[in-house]
Amino acid sequence: MTARVLVVDDVEPNVRLLEAKLQHEYYTVITAFSGEQAIVKAATENPDVILLDVMMPGLDGFETCKRLKADPKTSHIPIIMVTALDQKEDRILGLKVGADDFLSKPIDDVLLLARVRSLSRFKTLSDELRTREAVGRRFGVIENLHYLEDGLSARILILEDDNRRGERIKRVLASEQRPLLMSEANELGPEGHASVELMIVSTSGTSFDGLRLAAHIRSQTATRNLPILAIVDNHERDKALRALELGVNDFIDRPLDEEELLARVKTLVRRRRYIEALRESVDQTMEKAVTDQLTGLHNRRYMESQLKALLERMQRGGQPVSVLIADIDHFKRVNDLFGHDAGDDVIRQFSERLASNFRPRDLACRFGGEEFVVIMPDTLPEDAMQIAERLRHSIAAAPFYIGRNREQLEVTCSVGVSVGNQVSDIPETVLKRADQALYSAKQCGRNRVMAQAA
Amino acid sequence: MTARVLVVDDVEPNVRLLEAKLQHEYYTVITAFSGEQAIVKAATENPDVILLDVMMPGLDGFETCKRLKADPKTSHIPIIMVTALDQKEDRILGLKVGADDFLSKPIDDVLLLARVRSLSRFKTLSDELRTREAVGRRFGVIENLHYLEDGLSARILILEDDNRRGERIKRVLASEQRPLLMSEANELGPEGHASVELMIVSTSGTSFDGLRLAAHIRSQTATRNLPILAIVDNHERDKALRALELGVNDFIDRPLDEEELLARVKTLVRRRRYIEALRESVDQTMEKAVTDQLTGLHNRRYMESQLKALLERMQRGGQPVSVLIADIDHFKRVNDLFGHDAGDDVIRQFSERLASNFRPRDLACRFGGEEFVVIMPDTLPEDAMQIAERLRHSIAAAPFYIGRNREQLEVTCSVGVSVGNQVSDIPETVLKRADQALYSAKQCGRNRVMAQAA
Repeated sequence: MTARVLVVDDVEPNVRLLEAKLQHEYYTVITAFSGEQAIVKAATENPDVILLDVMMPGLDGFETCKRLKADPKTSHIPIIMVTALDQKEDRILGLKVGADDFLSKPIDDVLLLARVRSLSRFKTLSDELRTREAVGRRFGVIENLHYLEDGLSARILILEDDNRRGERIKRVLASEQRPLLMSEANELGPEGHASVELMIVSTSGTSFDGLRLAAHIRSQTATRNLPILAIVDNHERDKALRALELGVNDFIDRPLDEEELLARVKTLVRRRRYIEALRESVDQTMEKAVTDQLTGLHNRRYMESQLKALLERMQRGGQPVSVLIADIDHFKRVNDLFGHDAGDDVIRQFSERLASNFRPRDLACRFGGEEFVVIMPDTLPEDAMQIAERLRHSIAAAPFYIGRNREQLEVTCSVGVSVGNQVSDIPETVLKRADQALYSAKQCGRNRVMAQAA
Repeated sequence: MTARVLVVDDVEPNVRLLEAKLQHEYYTVITAFSGEQAIVKAATENPDVILLDVMMPGLDGFETCKRLKADPKTSHIPIIMVTALDQKEDRILGLKVGADDFLSKPIDDVLLLARVRSLSRFKTLSDELRTREAVGRRFGVIENLHYLEDGLSARILILEDDNRRGERIKRVLASEQRPLLMSEANELGPEGHASVELMIVSTSGTSFDGLRLAAHIRSQTATRNLPILAIVDNHERDKALRALELGVNDFIDRPLDEEELLARVKTLVRRRRYIEALRESVDQTMEKAVTDQLTGLHNRRYMESQLKALLERMQRGGQPVSVLIADIDHFKRVNDLFGHDAGDDVIRQFSERLASNFRPRDLACRFGGEEFVVIMPDTLPEDAMQIAERLRHSIAAAPFYIGRNREQLEVTCSVGVSVGNQVSDIPETVLKRADQALYSAKQCGRNRVMAQAA
C-alpha cells in the first residue's frame, strides 16, 4: 500500500534525496524544512508517516517529536526519527520522547520502505476507527482520545526457547512491564491470553520457526490485533524485513540493547492501547445507542427496529411474534408520595425482575416512563400469556425497596399481550393491540394480564 | 500481511500443492475437499480468502460460490475461483455468481500471492467494521448487513488518455453503469468526486503514469477508500503486480474482454457498497447514541458527558460554562386537552426554535419530557441571560401549531440560568442551580428567565 509521507529536514539536499526515493516507490511526499513547519503541516495534511531529522536549528527533532505527540490532532501519526549513525543516545532519546522508530544515516532504502509500510498500516487502521469514533462526538467540545499514555505495566508474553535468553529479556522488562515466559503461560490468570498486550517472538529459536509463529499469531481471530515484536539476529536483515512484511509490528536486533528494548516495548504497548481505546469508545457508544440509561434494558428505538425485522421475517413465512406491554400500577403515586429517586428505584427493581423472568432470546425493553415491552420471537399467544402471568406474579409476590432506608413498597403491574401474525402487521399495529389489552387490564382493576381481543 | 486461506478442491494433490505454496509464504491454510465441506468451514473458521476449484463432484464451484455469497455469515469472504486454463466461460460465470476473482491452472504463484494479499486486505477492513457494527445489534435477531447487492448503476470515472480506448470502455460499461471519461468530469454534478464509486485507471497512458496516479488516488484522504481497477497490457505482468501492491483493488488485462470488464466492475462496486454500508451503519448507530429521537437535539446522556468535559476544562484554567434549563409552561395541559400527538408537535416546534436561537458552539439538548438544556461554553452569565431572554421571547412571540388542522396554540416557557465557574462544580451542581432558578421563574408566574441566586 502506498501512503503520504512528511519528510522533515533543514538540509534541503537531504529532503530531496528522501523525496526522490519515496516518490520512486510511488509514495506521496510532503516536505518541511524546520520543526515549526513540520508541526503545521502534520496538523493540516494528516500524513501517514513522518520522517523527522534529529539535528535541526530552532526546534530540533526531539522537541518537534514531543510537541507532535502532545497534540491530540497529531499524536497518532507515526514518527520515524532519522539520526546520525551510531548515535545510540539519540535513538533511545527519540523513542523516549514518543518516536515510533528510528533510522540511521546513511539510510538503508529497503529498511526505510519496510518501516514506512508497516507504520502506515497502523495509521490506516487508526484513521478508520478515529473517523467512526468522531461521529459519536459530533462536535469538537470534548477532546480526541489521547494517544500518549504511559505504555507501562503491560502483560507481555516472551516466546523464546533459549532459557537463558528468555530469562534475560524478562529481567530487563520486569522493571517496567509484567513479562512472562512461554513456560509460565499458566500464570496468565483467568483471562488467559486475552490479558496479553504484546508478544515478543524470537526468530532464532531452535524448537520453533519464529516467523511462522508470528504469522500464526497474526492470522488467528483471537490474536489478530495483538502487537508483535520480533527479535532478530543482527546479521539476519532479510528475516527482519520478512517479519515486517508478515505483519510483525516492530523488530529489534540481537545483541539486545536493554534501553532500546524497553523503549520499543513501551511504544508498542502505547500504540496498542490507543487502538483498543478507540475500539472501546466506538463499542461503548454503539451499546449506548441501543440501551436505556436508567435500567440497562434495550431502549424503545432498538425494540422497534427489532420488532420490525421479526415481523418481516414472520411475513416471509417465519413464526409469529408475541409482544407484551407491562405498566406499573399507580406509578404516579410513588413519585408524588416518595419523590423521583424512589420512582427510579422502583423502575430499576422492576427491570431486574422483568429481565430475570424472560428467556435469552426474548427482548426486554423500557418503552418509556413506567412502561415496558417484551418481544418474544417464535412464541404463540398462549405461551406469551403464561410468561406474562409469571411476570405479573413475580412483581406482586415480593415487596420493592425504596430510598436509603430501604422502605418496603407493594408494587403491582398490569400487562397486555398481543401477537404479530398478520400479513399487514407492522410494529405500530402489534403494539397498539397490546396497548388496548393493557387498557382493558387497567379497567378491570389492575394487577392482571389481558390478551388482545380475538 | 499474512492471512488464513481456505483451499477447496476435491483432488487431494491439488489441495496439498496449494497448501504447500501458501504455507511456504507463512499463510495459515485450512482445507476442504468438497463444496459441502467448504460451506461448513467457511462459516465456522471465517477464513480471510477462499480458493475454490470450479470442477468438483456434488456441489461444484459455482454452486458453492453462490451459496457462500447468499449466506450473510459468509457473504463477505472473498472468493478466488480456480479454473482450467482458457475456460473463458467459466471465469465469467464465476464472477457472475459472486466470485471476487479467478486464477487459471496451472497457477501463477506470484499472481496467486498478490491476489490473496490484496483480497485479505479488504477482509481485514470489513472484519474490523463488522465487529464494531455487531455491537450495535447485540443480539442475532436482525440479520447482518447483506453483502449481495446488485453492483449496478455506479458512477465510474475512466482515467484513460487514449480517446478511442476510453470511449470503448465507456460504451461497454454504459449498459450497466454510469461511466464518465476524465474529460467529462464536469458532468459529475454538485456532489463532484464524492459521487464516484469506482476509478478505472489505464496504466498504458502516455500523458500520465497510471501507477503513480493510482497511488495518488489511494493516498489522498478524500479518495483513500475509493476502489481502483487498473487496466494493464497483457504482457506487463510486473505492472499488474505492482498495481496490486500499491493498493489497486483489481486489474484487468488488455485486450479487454467486455464481459470480464463488466463482471469485475460489478464485483468492485458491490464490495465498495458493502464496506460503505457497514461504515454508515456504524455511523448512524453512533449518531443515535447522542441524539434525542423525537427532536433530533442532543440527548441527556451526551449533554452530561459534554458538560463534564467542559467543567473539567474550566477547572484547568478555561472559561466558565453557562447552562440554561427551559421548561414549557403548563405542558401537561396540552397533553390532557389535545392528546399526546399534539404534545409531540409542541415539543418538536419548541426544539426548532430553541436550535435556531443558539450559536453553533452551543449544545442544545432535550433533557427529558418538556425540559430542555442548553450548554454555552466560554459564556459569561450576563451573556447567557440575554440569550435565555431571546429564547423566551421567540417562544412567546408566535403561536405554535398542533394537529392536522394546524390549530394555533399559545406557548410560553420558563428558564433558569446558572454558570459553572467553581472548582467544585460537576454537572449535577450546575444543573441543580439552573433547576432552582427555573423553579423561581415558575413561582414568579412563569414565562420569564431567572438566574441562579448569587
